[in-house]
Amino acid sequence: MLPKPSNQLASPENGDPLFLEPFWIQNAASSAMLVAGWHRMSYTFTNQSLISRLLEDHIRKLHTTVGNAVTQGRFIVFGAGSTQLLNAAVHALSPDNSSAPAKVVASFPFYTVYQLQTDFFRSVNFQFQGDASLWKNKSDSTLNFIEFVTSPNNPDGQLKKAVLQGPHVKTIHDHAYYWPHFTAIPAPADEDLMIFTLSKLTGHAGTRLGWALIKDEALYQRMSTYVKMNILGVSKDTQLRALKLLKVALEGSGKEIFEFGYTAMKERWERLSNALSESKRFSIQEIAPQYCTFFKTVRGPSPAYAWFKCEREEDKECYTVLKEAGIIGREGNLYGAETSYVRLSLLKSQDDFDALLHQINKLVAQEDGTKSII
Amino acid sequence: MLPKPSNQLASPENGDPLFLEPFWIQNAASSAMLVAGWHRMSYTFTNQSLISRLLEDHIRKLHTTVGNAVTQGRFIVFGAGSTQLLNAAVHALSPDNSSAPAKVVASFPFYTVYQLQTDFFRSVNFQFQGDASLWKNKSDSTLNFIEFVTSPNNPDGQLKKAVLQGPHVKTIHDHAYYWPHFTAIPAPADEDLMIFTLSKLTGHAGTRLGWALIKDEALYQRMSTYVKMNILGVSKDTQLRALKLLKVALEGSGKEIFEFGYTAMKERWERLSNALSESKRFSIQEIAPQYCTFFKTVRGPSPAYAWFKCEREEDKECYTVLKEAGIIGREGNLYGAETSYVRLSLLKSQDDFDALLHQINKLVAQEDGTKSII
Repeated sequence: MLPKPSNQLASPENGDPLFLEPFWIQNAASSAMLVAGWHRMSYTFTNQSLISRLLEDHIRKLHTTVGNAVTQGRFIVFGAGSTQLLNAAVHALSPDNSSAPAKVVASFPFYTVYQLQTDFFRSVNFQFQGDASLWKNKSDSTLNFIEFVTSPNNPDGQLKKAVLQGPHVKTIHDHAYYWPHFTAIPAPADEDLMIFTLSKLTGHAGTRLGWALIKDEALYQRMSTYVKMNILGVSKDTQLRALKLLKVALEGSGKEIFEFGYTAMKERWERLSNALSESKRFSIQEIAPQYCTFFKTVRGPSPAYAWFKCEREEDKECYTVLKEAGIIGREGNLYGAETSYVRLSLLKSQDDFDALLHQINKLVAQEDGTKSII
Repeated sequence: MLPKPSNQLASPENGDPLFLEPFWIQNAASSAMLVAGWHRMSYTFTNQSLISRLLEDHIRKLHTTVGNAVTQGRFIVFGAGSTQLLNAAVHALSPDNSSAPAKVVASFPFYTVYQLQTDFFRSVNFQFQGDASLWKNKSDSTLNFIEFVTSPNNPDGQLKKAVLQGPHVKTIHDHAYYWPHFTAIPAPADEDLMIFTLSKLTGHAGTRLGWALIKDEALYQRMSTYVKMNILGVSKDTQLRALKLLKVALEGSGKEIFEFGYTAMKERWERLSNALSESKRFSIQEIAPQYCTFFKTVRGPSPAYAWFKCEREEDKECYTVLKEAGIIGREGNLYGAETSYVRLSLLKSQDDFDALLHQINKLVAQEDGTKSII
């Protein structure tokens, strides 16, 4: 499809995953549901649990089908989006009554919410302390660390490992984007604490469902208590909707939604890469092709975000350069990076992406006066 | 209806508001809704808000119809149940960077969650400090207080006012039960910060929707930020379900659901009162009849809970006495009261209430060997 010849402002700012909306329109009949007014009024399900056992089973089944996470020997906690579970994990991993609060870190560039949230819920037990790499030589000390590891990373799409190791280091593996839409799946994730979200799996960000796979029972209990004390359990309407959607995702071979998602994201990445291929002024990250155990082939990149860089010294306020060109991204310094970087969201609607590409093409055309807009 | 002659264990323990389930069965056609798989996938509504403007309008309209709260000049924040908003309010009312954390109090007997939640989210900025009455002479000092005022009160159903007054006292008015189902409405509540919940209005506890009516814009912003940082907004599925239910509640004169709820709760109260009327061993609270501006008449009690007391010295572990009689209530000391009190939930399903009444009748019959079970 050619980009629309519009002068519309492009806003690849947030991570609204509307790239999957056409998939659900294609599957409108099987994904629609009727909700009776008198159903599921209670706080709990009939087994007195705050969690739908059926939804839990579907989540485990989907991870097994995709091969992106080991669920055997793991407890599951649901949250109102993975957002809630990030803080629940920090809370649960922090030592009680320690003289020093746990140091919460992430290797840069990192997802801004880790810092915003940790700072906002000012606890006596934890404190955000910046870049994990700066603490590398101190992680075998008696200091308590909690490291966020985002893989694939937000903003740059790279598969990441923990930077810190040591007896007092706890790790939260945020796998929001660890689905075939966005990355090769080299092997099932097998960490002690892994967090996933419906938003980046089915695209239903507004439904607010996240889940944590947890090896340690005591940690599972602490995180469950957090959710209970905070919101008395995830909305039953949320759980019902998610169940319906996962049933559709699991239909047939369980591959259809990922083929749709990967095809859409790969095409966007290729179009953006082509648009920038001859630019000396702008660049995007490189992501190496990798064998994917889900697609059983080596596959190229299809990340959720472009980690866009203005290469010239005079463009070091890259956000402003893009803004003047009608593109609203998110400033690199929000991710702990230099201002020469901007995060551009590639997973919004097709119209949003087309508007972005249109403006990028115009910008690149200006770079070389002789080059016309493709 | 006569109580079922069952020996079933009665569990009037939690506040699951199933007394309204028959109302929704009666209104099954108008309260059912069809949810399309591809609808409302975004984090926000089309106006970029996390809150449905239409739902907000319906909430304001319902308060006006019922006359239980002034909504003019108030901002609205939604939460995942009022549970979330209780802590959001404590968080937002606490001073930042003060040398002394705000003292969070409630006059006893009080809703346990205030303490559990305040203790659990151990912040540098607030700390639970028990019974408001004990601080009465210190509330005009420079100490920062946050008082929870629950009206009608949980557990005892009394309409309550703040105990503390002073320049550094902030008050959170929890009006979860301030609906004609449970109490006369003498006048619209007109406080600076009022919290309500769908659970005790329509009975949909599992849907997890609460809202706060807030006079001060800065406080509104702080509480909105709490919800955003915590869960990135209330589930759109929750908001859609609530909208559908409130539309039904507002149909016609907007009285039907309250007539249903009041009739059900009043009948239960009367049956329980009758069962205990001649007992010297057990008692329940007295609630004075009062003029209700909604029903435009003086009306008697219909509280959500019985605040049950074992009067005899040898029965001072009242929870155990009831447990031995097959009734699982909630111990009075959880509410900051003596162990001679137990909270019994009256708002569960009709079967639950019938089982409770059956066991109560048996217990009272034992008190006087000559009295048979009615």
